[in-house]
Amino acid sequence: MTDRLEAQLAFLREADRLKSVLRASRLIDGSRHENSAEHSWHIMLYALVLEEHADPQVRIDRVIRMLLLHDIVEIDAGDAPIHGQVDHAAMAAKENAAAQRLFGLLPADQAAEFRSLWEEFEAAQTPDAVFAKAVDRFQPPVANLASGGGTWRDYAVTLEQMDARVGHPVGRGAPALWRWLRPRLERFFSAV
Amino acid sequence: MTDRLEAQLAFLREADRLKSVLRASRLIDGSRHENSAEHSWHIMLYALVLEEHADPQVRIDRVIRMLLLHDIVEIDAGDAPIHGQVDHAAMAAKENAAAQRLFGLLPADQAAEFRSLWEEFEAAQTPDAVFAKAVDRFQPPVANLASGGGTWRDYAVTLEQMDARVGHPVGRGAPALWRWLRPRLERFFSAV
Repeated sequence: MTDRLEAQLAFLREADRLKSVLRASRLIDGSRHENSAEHSWHIMLYALVLEEHADPQVRIDRVIRMLLLHDIVEIDAGDAPIHGQVDHAAMAAKENAAAQRLFGLLPADQAAEFRSLWEEFEAAQTPDAVFAKAVDRFQPPVANLASGGGTWRDYAVTLEQMDARVGHPVGRGAPALWRWLRPRLERFFSAV
Repeated sequence: MTDRLEAQLAFLREADRLKSVLRASRLIDGSRHENSAEHSWHIMLYALVLEEHADPQVRIDRVIRMLLLHDIVEIDAGDAPIHGQVDHAAMAAKENAAAQRLFGLLPADQAAEFRSLWEEFEAAQTPDAVFAKAVDRFQPPVANLASGGGTWRDYAVTLEQMDARVGHPVGRGAPALWRWLRPRLERFFSAV
């Protein structure tokens, strides 16, 4: 029992480092970059509040668990900004190694369970994962619209890129949210 | 539908400010103070990982929802450090007003649901709330032990105060975690 608890606590202490992984996006007030731990908290809140916009098959508590775990690999692999230049194959390899090491700190049964939830999220095929991905892609544009552009200005993003990078996953997992977002993006990008 | 979604998004944008509410505690690496949003993420992870140490009646997904919402009132009311001097009646009044304003941004049905979960957490009477409180009080000492004292040094905390402020809620909601923690606290406090 003590060994098991020690393994759990080793994982939980290591998880503290997600608070130091910085994302490209900033807080709405512009004061600083957002970190991946507080981002994870925020999109879990998005999932809970916006549940009614998900497919009826979606089990929101599983989505929340997925989002709780989804960025932990970034402790080793770092954050890959959606609008940055990323070598996707190299990133996937780094994230797999990170999942191995980080979830591997846990007792074997929990390591397998968490890893499987994380892989389900990454694969984005089940209704729960599709909604989780939609929420993860929906929060940054809401923040950017509220703060006058945010990362879109940093990365010189175009509306066409938004349609591909945000429209596809959000439209697939939460069509009502994309219907809300699309005309606002169009207005923003036609003005810049 | 659009009015409803606008209300949900107003709440979610306002929630961004929880990332700027600083707690007394620091990250384990000592680099900076922790904020209440990333703290909320971390204790949700604690709850998920440590579920087996809860009473069998506890429904962990409800606990996770409670922890997701539990600090949102701090956007208006600020954080009350467990080892600081706090006027508890004044704080409760501020938090009630904060709950009214912040959850009140949501559609009425969600405002009522979230407020009720938050009140259940605060009252700490149901098995779910008792475990949620235990987890909320267990994470800071784990971090302090890992970082050589942290807030205990800042506030000149004694073992007797730890027994009252941490031992009571953790021992009640997760006795196995208190059995792990107590001898480590004793060792730490006998050495300072």
